[in-house]
Amino acid sequence: VKLSDLIKNLSVTVPDGYSLDIKIERLNTLKDGKEGELSFLHNKNYTSQLKESRVSAVLIHKNSLSNTPENIVPLIADNPYIELAKASKLFATPFESSDRGEAVVGENTEIDSSVHIGNGSVIGKNVRIFANSYIGDGVTIGDNSIIYLNVSLYKDSKIGKDVIIHSGSVIGSDGFGFATDSTGEHIKIYQNGYVEIGDSVEIGANCTVDRAVFDKTVIRAGTKIDNLVHIGHNADIGENSILVGQSGISGSTTIGRNFVLGGQAGVAGHLKIAPFTTVTARAGVTKSIRDSGKYWSGFPLFEHRKWLKLQAKISSLLK
Amino acid sequence: VKLSDLIKNLSVTVPDGYSLDIKIERLNTLKDGKEGELSFLHNKNYTSQLKESRVSAVLIHKNSLSNTPENIVPLIADNPYIELAKASKLFATPFESSDRGEAVVGENTEIDSSVHIGNGSVIGKNVRIFANSYIGDGVTIGDNSIIYLNVSLYKDSKIGKDVIIHSGSVIGSDGFGFATDSTGEHIKIYQNGYVEIGDSVEIGANCTVDRAVFDKTVIRAGTKIDNLVHIGHNADIGENSILVGQSGISGSTTIGRNFVLGGQAGVAGHLKIAPFTTVTARAGVTKSIRDSGKYWSGFPLFEHRKWLKLQAKISSLLK
Amino acid sequence: VKLSDLIKNLSVTVPDGYSLDIKIERLNTLKDGKEGELSFLHNKNYTSQLKESRVSAVLIHKNSLSNTPENIVPLIADNPYIELAKASKLFATPFESSDRGEAVVGENTEIDSSVHIGNGSVIGKNVRIFANSYIGDGVTIGDNSIIYLNVSLYKDSKIGKDVIIHSGSVIGSDGFGFATDSTGEHIKIYQNGYVEIGDSVEIGANCTVDRAVFDKTVIRAGTKIDNLVHIGHNADIGENSILVGQSGISGSTTIGRNFVLGGQAGVAGHLKIAPFTTVTARAGVTKSIRDSGKYWSGFPLFEHRKWLKLQAKISSLLK
Repeated sequence: VKLSDLIKNLSVTVPDGYSLDIKIERLNTLKDGKEGELSFLHNKNYTSQLKESRVSAVLIHKNSLSNTPENIVPLIADNPYIELAKASKLFATPFESSDRGEAVVGENTEIDSSVHIGNGSVIGKNVRIFANSYIGDGVTIGDNSIIYLNVSLYKDSKIGKDVIIHSGSVIGSDGFGFATDSTGEHIKIYQNGYVEIGDSVEIGANCTVDRAVFDKTVIRAGTKIDNLVHIGHNADIGENSILVGQSGISGSTTIGRNFVLGGQAGVAGHLKIAPFTTVTARAGVTKSIRDSGKYWSGFPLFEHRKWLKLQAKISSLLK
Repeated sequence: VKLSDLIKNLSVTVPDGYSLDIKIERLNTLKDGKEGELSFLHNKNYTSQLKESRVSAVLIHKNSLSNTPENIVPLIADNPYIELAKASKLFATPFESSDRGEAVVGENTEIDSSVHIGNGSVIGKNVRIFANSYIGDGVTIGDNSIIYLNVSLYKDSKIGKDVIIHSGSVIGSDGFGFATDSTGEHIKIYQNGYVEIGDSVEIGANCTVDRAVFDKTVIRAGTKIDNLVHIGHNADIGENSILVGQSGISGSTTIGRNFVLGGQAGVAGHLKIAPFTTVTARAGVTKSIRDSGKYWSGFPLFEHRKWLKLQAKISSLLK
Repeated sequence: VKLSDLIKNLSVTVPDGYSLDIKIERLNTLKDGKEGELSFLHNKNYTSQLKESRVSAVLIHKNSLSNTPENIVPLIADNPYIELAKASKLFATPFESSDRGEAVVGENTEIDSSVHIGNGSVIGKNVRIFANSYIGDGVTIGDNSIIYLNVSLYKDSKIGKDVIIHSGSVIGSDGFGFATDSTGEHIKIYQNGYVEIGDSVEIGANCTVDRAVFDKTVIRAGTKIDNLVHIGHNADIGENSILVGQSGISGSTTIGRNFVLGGQAGVAGHLKIAPFTTVTARAGVTKSIRDSGKYWSGFPLFEHRKWLKLQAKISSLLK
């Protein structure tokens, strides 16, 4: 999209002297964004990222104009986040498209006749896909993977080798992102990223892994996920992690390798969790964890031994 | 059903002098019930509702006979709730029926060939329905709505305009209602109501919204629901609410507009929650909330600031 | 499999003097195992079970050799659990097979044309199976049962009479079991058991019930399960229990009759719960419960009255 066309759909103003004759191909964060991409500054804590960003244009409040580098076109808005939501719709691609060419299926792969195989998808060798699963446009599936029943792989999902996905799991549905206007209405931020699942990952039944808003949600190689687990958009789960049943990880949280998350436990969004961290069942993580190799429990979260001690103290209140 | 026929299937007695030659068309609560409907009094706290009810007949324990208005036929039972369960079965309609006429589909609507479209359903314009979804008998879907993969819309669901329902969600499955007899066996209360979803609602992947036992479960316009969320029967969720992943709302709870429910949080049944209430992640609400606009946390629930203070006090037990 | 062939795939040594010319038909626990079966000793707490086991061969660490009865062939491994994982793969049977003969369907049973009916399955009379459900190989379904939409019944599931399974539920997907090697990689323990569901059980929407690793996961007659509930492998849920929405029961836990588990509550694995136990919403059970008929709350768990008292004490810290 040409920037001059894009801004016709937005409530923004551009200071004099900037060329609008540039192409915007994608939305992205300030941090990861590159030339040809549009970003936004919604939270002043990220002002330093604006100063170093390499995007071509940015949605900002007028107060941030002085912090915008010369080579980035500032799109000034009363509420940059709402303008982002509007822009995200313009970059959304159709769920199914006839433009993506024929699917390619490897040798010795068996696919149930009820399975939808999207255009442009590439399925490896020795793959099994069972009844009523759906392989969206542009999905790739590595060799030897097994997709059980009623599995939904939304467009552009990338599934590694030796992956197992159990029935009813949904990979790549929209991340949960909205901009709320002054009347309390929520405007959808279209989720234009995708999901990437590493080799030898196993995902249980009726799990949900949301597609990224930009870029990707990642589950790294060797991670094993139980049933009814939720992974939010743009999360990044380290290698060989274990996520037990009914646990959940919110959006944009990055987790190191060999993480263990107990049953019904949860991790809030936008955190960083050190590798080899264990969080016991029903615990809730709301802050980043910097030291690796520790056990954590409870909500609020404590180191496991401290939590045990604290529970003993609490229990002694009854005496 | 004629009342005289209905009571042949129940263990009830009727005092002399009442006419059984009336038609009962539906079950309903004492409060909402109208002429031609049968209700029940299971819990003495609702005796005042009995006194003012407009139903035509009521299942009661003999102790409540004196509180039954003259114009309501009392059906006296040892356990009115069990008789209600038995009666509910008689009013259940088939899941699929050939009696409901042809479906009507609007212009420019695209429906995957694998989708079942039930009799008597009415689907608006510009709707998209993707693979393996099921549209039950008598379902209505408003213009521009998107139903993704493997979605189940049970009979009589009413879906508004501009609604998005992600894959694997189940709308209108039976509410969880049973009457337990003296041997500990649970007798199903058939759920003869339906689900109504307002305009611009978005429902994530693998959610469940139960049909009402009588009347309807309601999700009002503009509400956005994340993945793996559960909504119980007869709940009523206000406009523009946000329900984050793995949260749940139990049956018969009524919630005001712009409610926010954090991830893995829950709300018990039969409560009233004021508008603009925020409940943070992992909190549990067990009492009604009367004051609007407040933040709440924890389980048991406290106002958020109090909860923070309390956690500091608790934590100081370790010193 | 002949034991001599089996051990070619494993990293084990066998002391002199044992015959490897025996047939191993199945894996099993030390406690339940019979002649012709292979077991393992992973945790020294179970040494007494080794001494009394009736299996034909056992994977053990060399330290346990002296505790192995004469009639059991010891397979000595550095990590017996990893060798168990390797062995489990050898006993896994295909998800779909042409060897199991034709399905048998009873009178007056109606099955939607989109439903897959596996080989060797036996479906009773008056059964209803709705769109996009999948009945795996060797599944049995008793008379009058109703299987709603998109339900997955994996191979060998046994479903009783008068059972109702709501849409999207997955019965018999793999239990969550892995052996972790010294590099932190998780090796799948193939789940070669099955699920058995008793008469008059009702299972809500989008639930998951995992198949057993050996033997079976059991849900006994009359139990009613709400939506989004997870049941781990080898769990055994007593008659007429009630499991409310989003609750979960971990693997190998045995529960007595008329158990009630509140919404979003959880029970850890390998526990025994006495009959007529009630666990309130959002509670977490981590220890066995020996006395029947009691109410429990909170996490950590307390008897309900104690928990109420404790919450009052905690709350008074604010004064």
